[in-house]
Amino acid sequence: MILGSEAEADRWARVAWSRIAEPQDAAVRDWIAAKGASAALRDVVEGRVARDGRYAARLAELDLPGAVRALDRHGYTVVVPGDAGWPDGVDLLRTPPLCLYVRGDADLASLFERSVAVVGSRDCTDYGVQVTAALASGLANRNVCVVSGAAYGIDAAAHRSVLAAEGRTVAFLACGVDRVYPEAHRGMLAEIARTGAVVSEIPLGGAPFRLRFLARNRLIAAVTLGTVVVEASARSGSLNTARHARDLVKPVAAVPGPVTRMQSAGCHDLIRTKGASLVTDAAEVMDLMGRIGDDLAEVRRGPESTTDGLSPTVLAVWAAVPVRRGVEVEVLARATALPSAAVAGALATLELDGLVRRSPAGWSKAR
Amino acid sequence: MILGSEAEADRWARVAWSRIAEPQDAAVRDWIAAKGASAALRDVVEGRVARDGRYAARLAELDLPGAVRALDRHGYTVVVPGDAGWPDGVDLLRTPPLCLYVRGDADLASLFERSVAVVGSRDCTDYGVQVTAALASGLANRNVCVVSGAAYGIDAAAHRSVLAAEGRTVAFLACGVDRVYPEAHRGMLAEIARTGAVVSEIPLGGAPFRLRFLARNRLIAAVTLGTVVVEASARSGSLNTARHARDLVKPVAAVPGPVTRMQSAGCHDLIRTKGASLVTDAAEVMDLMGRIGDDLAEVRRGPESTTDGLSPTVLAVWAAVPVRRGVEVEVLARATALPSAAVAGALATLELDGLVRRSPAGWSKAR
Repeated sequence: MILGSEAEADRWARVAWSRIAEPQDAAVRDWIAAKGASAALRDVVEGRVARDGRYAARLAELDLPGAVRALDRHGYTVVVPGDAGWPDGVDLLRTPPLCLYVRGDADLASLFERSVAVVGSRDCTDYGVQVTAALASGLANRNVCVVSGAAYGIDAAAHRSVLAAEGRTVAFLACGVDRVYPEAHRGMLAEIARTGAVVSEIPLGGAPFRLRFLARNRLIAAVTLGTVVVEASARSGSLNTARHARDLVKPVAAVPGPVTRMQSAGCHDLIRTKGASLVTDAAEVMDLMGRIGDDLAEVRRGPESTTDGLSPTVLAVWAAVPVRRGVEVEVLARATALPSAAVAGALATLELDGLVRRSPAGWSKAR
Repeated sequence: MILGSEAEADRWARVAWSRIAEPQDAAVRDWIAAKGASAALRDVVEGRVARDGRYAARLAELDLPGAVRALDRHGYTVVVPGDAGWPDGVDLLRTPPLCLYVRGDADLASLFERSVAVVGSRDCTDYGVQVTAALASGLANRNVCVVSGAAYGIDAAAHRSVLAAEGRTVAFLACGVDRVYPEAHRGMLAEIARTGAVVSEIPLGGAPFRLRFLARNRLIAAVTLGTVVVEASARSGSLNTARHARDLVKPVAAVPGPVTRMQSAGCHDLIRTKGASLVTDAAEVMDLMGRIGDDLAEVRRGPESTTDGLSPTVLAVWAAVPVRRGVEVEVLARATALPSAAVAGALATLELDGLVRRSPAGWSKAR
């Protein structure tokens, strides 16, 4: 295999490293930071480091030309630090990914520039799916890219709602981007790749397992403006994503739900004890995570009452006027403990506003 | 009518004032503060104040001996500042009540010493009733008195659940304690009076109307340790109670619910924009409002996992061990990118914990 420029050498050394080491390997991170990926790779190949045999088995199996050909064959790309598409957010992580494999043609950096993570439990409820759909399509309509993990439940509901709204969504996998996990999401992942991107730090062919899921979660937290958890039982992986977001000092929000359902317990705990913000819709999410000025949620109000804006005295008189039978000013004065003149003045105001009417029987509320 | 000591004169002057003025009359408050209730009453009777005719109509109808006889006939009591039963909390209010009418024999001050307001919408949902029942009976079981407003919906659910749990509950009315409002709650109010108290600042015979409901809410907020709102649509009166509690620098909590139901919108808004705490049960309420040390909520956790407490290396190996077919140490070393010796050590730990087993085919997870 011919390595081109120094930048290209670095790219393929990182691909090699991603096949040798698991995500979040602090020793590899430190080597690469100290010597560069290529020199560090030479060191390990030539046995100058990792005398304990760590990496030996995978190193023996490493087939870098084969890995490059597999990428080309699938049409997948790999982005590394320094590439225009490299998402800056991941550099905030204690152990950034070595490289990112991308299935899809979209530019990662521009997808993530205005993006929100929407995550939650696999074992979600119908309510969770319904709220996720409203939230994710609301974000899509606000031109926000929705990032999630392509799992069953909330993740899939988030991706699917964005696809339906013709917005942009990115799935981060815990396996190689050439694999489909879970299998039931084959079509969904293809559609995500066609319109957005499917991304992973795991090399092609890599299987998903627990520590890779946990590592994957930190990427979702790192590339987005903030994380929204829709439903999460007490041990849901989405709480791990929320923890990463908090560690990165990014906003974390959670959607409330019935306190009688365990699927909302994790969300309530995030709000109650972890400082997460309560959100009920996309506008509130962008109020929290969006650019100041662009994304302020509208203030919610009940329906306007006809008596809004009345002075306390006028309101007191209005409250005392009966709906059906008419009453005289003196009766209202007694009911309100106001002088008759004040009552008469208030009634005049109310009559002008069409709120009370005078009949031979006295004053009553207007219909 | 014979007035006894100065204290008794003050008591009956306050009863008289409660029949002349509406709650929250700042002028009356200032008069009484300056001159005492008796002297202030003489002033108004002799026309030295309120030249504008305010109070004149009600003063003309005032029958203090009749009011005293009505109290005696019903067996109701009246408490005023200085009485042992006077709840200190109301003195924090900008306009404290002039006196409190009490239906029931219990001592108000001791009822309120450890009490929480549980309030909410009249037009509540089944979910709201269910949560209120769990919350109110949970508070009763913790020896907390539940204070509410005897309205339809959440208020009634709170009172009834406490009665069923044989706890203590107090209803604040916006009408005289001799009246029943709403009529459907006649039996409930009798039961509350029998075991706790029905309380109002409105004199006997007084009708409920809007401003009296709003005034009543401030009393509920003032006598309790804090206020919990269970369900509240955007204009619910319970939000007014919450506002009073906040103004009094008392904790305000709200129960979340489905974001798809308007009955929870007020609760979510309290949490999202008004600084209310999210609570899901009685333990969390007392964690927020109870005495430090006595009432701390237990930390919630998911079910304990058998792998809790394992080191990252051991956990990585455990995650890589297959459930069915057995594998050799070298396969696990490759899967985890760990040296073989480390994998063997981790397997020994896991075998001791009964988490993996060795067979002729290799290592697999224990059932």
